Amino acid sequence: MPQIDVCLSPELYKLCDQENSIVVVIDILRATSAICTAFEFGVDKVIPVDSVEKAQEYKDKGFLVGAERNGKMLEGFDFGNSPYSYTDPRIKNQPVVITTTNGTRAIELAKNNHMVVIGAFTNISALCEWLADQNKDVLLLCSGWKGRTNLEDSMFAGAVVDRLFEHPTYDESYSDAALAARHLFLLAEEDPQVFLRNSSHRQRLADLNLKEDIKYSLQVDKTEVIPVLRDGELVRLEVEKPSAAKS
Amino acid sequence: MPQIDVCLSPELYKLCDQENSIVVVIDILRATSAICTAFEFGVDKVIPVDSVEKAQEYKDKGFLVGAERNGKMLEGFDFGNSPYSYTDPRIKNQPVVITTTNGTRAIELAKNNHMVVIGAFTNISALCEWLADQNKDVLLLCSGWKGRTNLEDSMFAGAVVDRLFEHPTYDESYSDAALAARHLFLLAEEDPQVFLRNSSHRQRLADLNLKEDIKYSLQVDKTEVIPVLRDGELVRLEVEKPSAAKS
Repeated sequence: MPQIDVCLSPELYKLCDQENSIVVVIDILRATSAICTAFEFGVDKVIPVDSVEKAQEYKDKGFLVGAERNGKMLEGFDFGNSPYSYTDPRIKNQPVVITTTNGTRAIELAKNNHMVVIGAFTNISALCEWLADQNKDVLLLCSGWKGRTNLEDSMFAGAVVDRLFEHPTYDESYSDAALAARHLFLLAEEDPQVFLRNSSHRQRLADLNLKEDIKYSLQVDKTEVIPVLRDGELVRLEVEKPSAAKS
Repeated sequence: MPQIDVCLSPELYKLCDQENSIVVVIDILRATSAICTAFEFGVDKVIPVDSVEKAQEYKDKGFLVGAERNGKMLEGFDFGNSPYSYTDPRIKNQPVVITTTNGTRAIELAKNNHMVVIGAFTNISALCEWLADQNKDVLLLCSGWKGRTNLEDSMFAGAVVDRLFEHPTYDESYSDAALAARHLFLLAEEDPQVFLRNSSHRQRLADLNLKEDIKYSLQVDKTEVIPVLRDGELVRLEVEKPSAAKS
């Protein structure tokens, strides 16, 4: 039976079974939330790149480019990684290039896997319903912060585990990382903002006056799009059949 | 102010600030619980080695040697890593050599740090009272299982964070890993055995019929000894003054 596993940091990715897994890349604050927002607002595709140099090359060619390092938008680019940036009408039917401190690096790490999709609270129901129909191993890859575990990505991974827990498709035996993530989600579920109040990321972001981004990123089901990586570009996944397995 | 941090896996050790930290090595099931038991039962010193070959060299020289891989005692050695093994009267005033799948590897990883001590539920109060008096950064290093995070080590790290939480000595800003570990401990606190019931380690150990070891390893305060690494050997830490700071 297929299994659901959680990788709490990109540094642990090599220890996880990924070869035949669907890898869900998670960077709640804020790359994957921003990517889902871009699709919600009609972007044609999102091209993730893992360095500022590559982002600059695209910028020089006239692309719209988002670039963030250490929580701040880099000067000379169009966007940072705030989800609000990607509500900009200019992105409609256009490609957007993005590079971020953590999220695009996790995508880069997983890119040779047979299937990579993007997860965020903003697309969680669509994602989980689709996953439940796949009958495949799932690896929830938390981007963390510079290789370290963070609460928001772990909590989201736990939310996905929780939605698929006891689903007849999946093996009942979960890794400790998956169980730990689910415990964190169940603790956080009632009020995720309060749960994150003391997190190190929240403290980082508070310095940057970005409370609104957190609030935005914790909203569920703003979009039904599941971004999927095809030939290095994120495009809308065509969901083949309506799911009957809402858990 | 000094900080308390948690490293959820040896794979993340390089990302943690350790240079001036007291590193507490944690392998609840079962290496660090076993080492504490050995001291409780009068061992002179414990020599941790990171390979079966090195353990065999000591065995050939006539030392008492514990050797475990994948949860099982290796043939030809005196002990595995069950805490019960180390209640053997033969160890009194003798050195014992030990190699295990995870715990001794974590010790090896941390050995060049300026101070490495051994933590387990069985010495938790002595450990925490001593830590509270040191005014030093503390890094709680979870051995995990072959590099992966496990619930029992994370939960113990969280128990230490919880005991020192809001202690006036320590900085109030905790890493997300430390907060996550503390959350797990608070969930587990009421009944750690039930909490661990579904853990992957528990399933592994159940196969090996080692329930009793789990029960033993979850007991608190069986000993006041804090094993400390000096020149590659674990000896009793001489605690210089009685602690006034019981939290």
